[in-house]
Amino acid sequence: MDFQSSLAKLEGLDFKGLYQDDFFLTWDKSEDEIRAVLAVADALRALRENNKSCRIFDSGLGISLFRDNSTRTRFSYASACNFLGLEEQVFDEGKSQVAHGETVMETANMISFMADVIGIRDDMYIGKGHTYMKAFSEYVQMGYKEGVLEQRPTVVSLQCDIDHPTQSTADLLHLVHEFGGLENLKGKKLAMTWAYSPSYGKPLSVPQGMIGLMSRFGMDIVLAHPEGYDTMQEPRDVAAKFAAESGGSFRVTNSMEDAFDGADIVCPKSWAPFAAMEERTELYGNGDTAGIKELEQRLLAQNAQHKDWTTTEELMKKTKDGKGLYMHPLPADITGVSCKEGEVAESVFDRYRVPMYKEASNKPYAIAAMIFLMKQADPQGKLQQLWESAPARWAH
Amino acid sequence: MDFQSSLAKLEGLDFKGLYQDDFFLTWDKSEDEIRAVLAVADALRALRENNKSCRIFDSGLGISLFRDNSTRTRFSYASACNFLGLEEQVFDEGKSQVAHGETVMETANMISFMADVIGIRDDMYIGKGHTYMKAFSEYVQMGYKEGVLEQRPTVVSLQCDIDHPTQSTADLLHLVHEFGGLENLKGKKLAMTWAYSPSYGKPLSVPQGMIGLMSRFGMDIVLAHPEGYDTMQEPRDVAAKFAAESGGSFRVTNSMEDAFDGADIVCPKSWAPFAAMEERTELYGNGDTAGIKELEQRLLAQNAQHKDWTTTEELMKKTKDGKGLYMHPLPADITGVSCKEGEVAESVFDRYRVPMYKEASNKPYAIAAMIFLMKQADPQGKLQQLWESAPARWAH
Amino acid sequence: MDFQSSLAKLEGLDFKGLYQDDFFLTWDKSEDEIRAVLAVADALRALRENNKSCRIFDSGLGISLFRDNSTRTRFSYASACNFLGLEEQVFDEGKSQVAHGETVMETANMISFMADVIGIRDDMYIGKGHTYMKAFSEYVQMGYKEGVLEQRPTVVSLQCDIDHPTQSTADLLHLVHEFGGLENLKGKKLAMTWAYSPSYGKPLSVPQGMIGLMSRFGMDIVLAHPEGYDTMQEPRDVAAKFAAESGGSFRVTNSMEDAFDGADIVCPKSWAPFAAMEERTELYGNGDTAGIKELEQRLLAQNAQHKDWTTTEELMKKTKDGKGLYMHPLPADITGVSCKEGEVAESVFDRYRVPMYKEASNKPYAIAAMIFLMKQADPQGKLQQLWESAPARWAH
Repeated sequence: MDFQSSLAKLEGLDFKGLYQDDFFLTWDKSEDEIRAVLAVADALRALRENNKSCRIFDSGLGISLFRDNSTRTRFSYASACNFLGLEEQVFDEGKSQVAHGETVMETANMISFMADVIGIRDDMYIGKGHTYMKAFSEYVQMGYKEGVLEQRPTVVSLQCDIDHPTQSTADLLHLVHEFGGLENLKGKKLAMTWAYSPSYGKPLSVPQGMIGLMSRFGMDIVLAHPEGYDTMQEPRDVAAKFAAESGGSFRVTNSMEDAFDGADIVCPKSWAPFAAMEERTELYGNGDTAGIKELEQRLLAQNAQHKDWTTTEELMKKTKDGKGLYMHPLPADITGVSCKEGEVAESVFDRYRVPMYKEASNKPYAIAAMIFLMKQADPQGKLQQLWESAPARWAH
Repeated sequence: MDFQSSLAKLEGLDFKGLYQDDFFLTWDKSEDEIRAVLAVADALRALRENNKSCRIFDSGLGISLFRDNSTRTRFSYASACNFLGLEEQVFDEGKSQVAHGETVMETANMISFMADVIGIRDDMYIGKGHTYMKAFSEYVQMGYKEGVLEQRPTVVSLQCDIDHPTQSTADLLHLVHEFGGLENLKGKKLAMTWAYSPSYGKPLSVPQGMIGLMSRFGMDIVLAHPEGYDTMQEPRDVAAKFAAESGGSFRVTNSMEDAFDGADIVCPKSWAPFAAMEERTELYGNGDTAGIKELEQRLLAQNAQHKDWTTTEELMKKTKDGKGLYMHPLPADITGVSCKEGEVAESVFDRYRVPMYKEASNKPYAIAAMIFLMKQADPQGKLQQLWESAPARWAH
Repeated sequence: MDFQSSLAKLEGLDFKGLYQDDFFLTWDKSEDEIRAVLAVADALRALRENNKSCRIFDSGLGISLFRDNSTRTRFSYASACNFLGLEEQVFDEGKSQVAHGETVMETANMISFMADVIGIRDDMYIGKGHTYMKAFSEYVQMGYKEGVLEQRPTVVSLQCDIDHPTQSTADLLHLVHEFGGLENLKGKKLAMTWAYSPSYGKPLSVPQGMIGLMSRFGMDIVLAHPEGYDTMQEPRDVAAKFAAESGGSFRVTNSMEDAFDGADIVCPKSWAPFAAMEERTELYGNGDTAGIKELEQRLLAQNAQHKDWTTTEELMKKTKDGKGLYMHPLPADITGVSCKEGEVAESVFDRYRVPMYKEASNKPYAIAAMIFLMKQADPQGKLQQLWESAPARWAH
């Protein structure tokens, strides 16, 4: 991650569309824009490693709105904001007047008086999260136009019901680093597969985000899951289209072995069936507590029929030369560690622990890169200027 | 909100008394001091619009202590602190040792080691909020004198039981902007009226703060509410005195139509009767849960007798030329939107939505102006210096 | 606390070992290192009093992880971080995925992507807190070595089951200021005694931290408590060794009068018996709620047998010339104020209130000094540079 070579990767790319925009779905961004995010993430990492302050804001707020628990993403977002000069300000709906029946339009404007960025995680309910973020963005845009807000806050999805762009971008950065460049991913086989977990209702946005992004770079993507664990249709269509365009392939299988066979990269992870998540959303909407409990029991029982979908050493041997790269967005359900039976054997997890931590450590840079590109009219010029003359971040 | 003309408004005003003082009740401040707050708020807004950093602190803390839920005021305070260079630090009594029986004197000092500003919302109990803030201020003053604290923190009321100075100041800024200057408010009729809401116990500090501030500038103020919904006596006395002094008038009526008749400005908003709030405070003090529930039912029933106190299109037609300015501190109870029957018709609210958002957007600048004036020995000089040589807030 | 004389105290001391280290137990630090912390704390206080910005970080995070309620320490830590240029970021385990069965190794790395300091309070369970902090430190060290983290975060104990180093350091600073220098403590008698409180389970780390640190400077330390209220063995061994080495003494007594007799300094404070705390830790580990309740009742009854262990005016008369210095880490259980019968009489507490607030006000500087020394390769040079050319903290 040399600074100048990262910077050089921006040459010739067209990413002007990111300026003052939002970041919701990776597949709504052009390939050049995605490439720009990767290059800027690595450039920012190099700046930090060289103890350069990357404050492009002298003051300003980065609002966070988490509708689901989070450790990695929360700290990644807070880190990225701080790194760029923004103070994180948590919007806790429970301590607000949202319960008063306040509209999204009103909330969006009332928390954005001096907000430069709004990071939102809203992944729990199908058909809601992405819709909420788009509405939020529309309303702050309105507030900006009408003179309510001096600045137009940029909205960054920290996970919605459809995509998890900061996760998939961090994952892609990991592959770029592991394989020595985006161009080296061409022809690689990536298995995004379901795995057994004793818990219920894990988000679909992780596998969906993965296939929607990784399919753009000529890889052979296999999405594997037991029958009945389908994802949403849209990201699969996206993956198929991108794979065809980039000279790769995309297919779905119901066999974990098939997916692992010769794979360069495997990402085995539990998720809930899309149809069940739709059902749950409706049950929550109706306040049907009994129905939710019944659904949970049904899903746990369904999961329990697929305990053989687990990442064993035997299965890992089927990967390319037995050395396929195991990935996970963390935290994983590790057999015998965090649960009795889970997504992955302890020995497999342990062997890839450090790489996975590095994978996770890309996330603050991925987020910072998105914000940087959405907040800089001339990203190359600013990066070069930071490299040459930024003060030390830590004056030691 | 041109910078130089805002700055010019400070000329000839005497506001030295604000330096190192607190901000509790607007009527304890001189008219010059209020005028200074308005001018500085607009000057700071102009600085921000021109992308000037307004950090007068290189480091420092702005403590917030909210004893009631808040969205607008919380984010306004956090924004103002950040804009001036202070990091917001929330004092959450639930996570503290206040339950240990710690005294206010002790708490005040223990959270102020490096605090430059303390913002407090304590509006729930009659006779408590303002008293608490004054005690807090006295104790940090003691701590400063005794060498416990290096700096004397400034206490800013973010709403007490008597006044809501940051709200009324934001509202006054709104009128100044809408009518093209403070001098143009002279002779205008402002109706501060009660309105029906299906909820219980809304704070009195909003109408009280409104009449206590707006009466200073020659307006004809009408306070309207059903019989039995009296406010505290003190702010009414204040309003009567100020109105007489400034060439305006102040009267109370029990008719919403009377108040709206020919009004230039209307602010219809629910509140609880003062006597009931005193009763509630006593019931809470005695831990009388049954009594509180009974009171709540009684008040809701009482409210329900006044559902005709609502802002309809018909009523709006009675205002000056049918075009009176509708205001609300938000969030409003909108009929058919946030409740079945509420303070205002949807069409009225929607027509004034953008102006009300602008009204709300004044609050961070109102708070910042108060802090600025309380923390700067030479505000004009500092503002001019920021205009001429402050670094960019956002280096884009 | 003159700056240059504070700075001069660093001359000749060897404290290189603090650089990039952690701060857990004062007795693991050399005497020179402790002396350096004292000198830097006073130098930083002088810088602040002279309105010098002490930001050694242009951006960066100070993570806080509190497993127990806190006011003083929380605000001291937040203040210290802000003063040095770090933004506090609270790690709230309840809002995280720790419940997922995540390991300490993983959590430690996932919250440290851009963390310069991690402050941890974990004082509730015997055998846990210190162990947790050491593991945390080991794992971020691993993350740093493996390239997961760009920086190695420094871990500062904000109280563990064994020691409370930021408290005892603030207390020692208080003695240095009160007696006019560390050298003047030689030969002074300090009574660390148990006192009655109607509450249960107060941490042992306060008395343990006190005897473990104060014994290093030639004082005559008496630890007093009723039979059955023994502390851990380790800090007593440490105190005995240090006392012998420094020309002081250390002994344990079961008489409060004996301890007060001729004492220059008294610190009467409730704590729970070590054996009971071990029992409680096991009961919590087993989830034995009934057992915990039974233990609580037993301990409260045991406490109630020692209500005569309280700091009366009569007892204070037995101190040196009747003028011994009364200390308390706060909040205290004051008879007739915060409880019916407690640790100290109101008149005694009130007479020493201001000195105790000053004692508490040392804590942010103690913490800042620890961080400063752990984050600066050349502390003297940096302090001198701040003195000469740091910008104003507050541009007023």
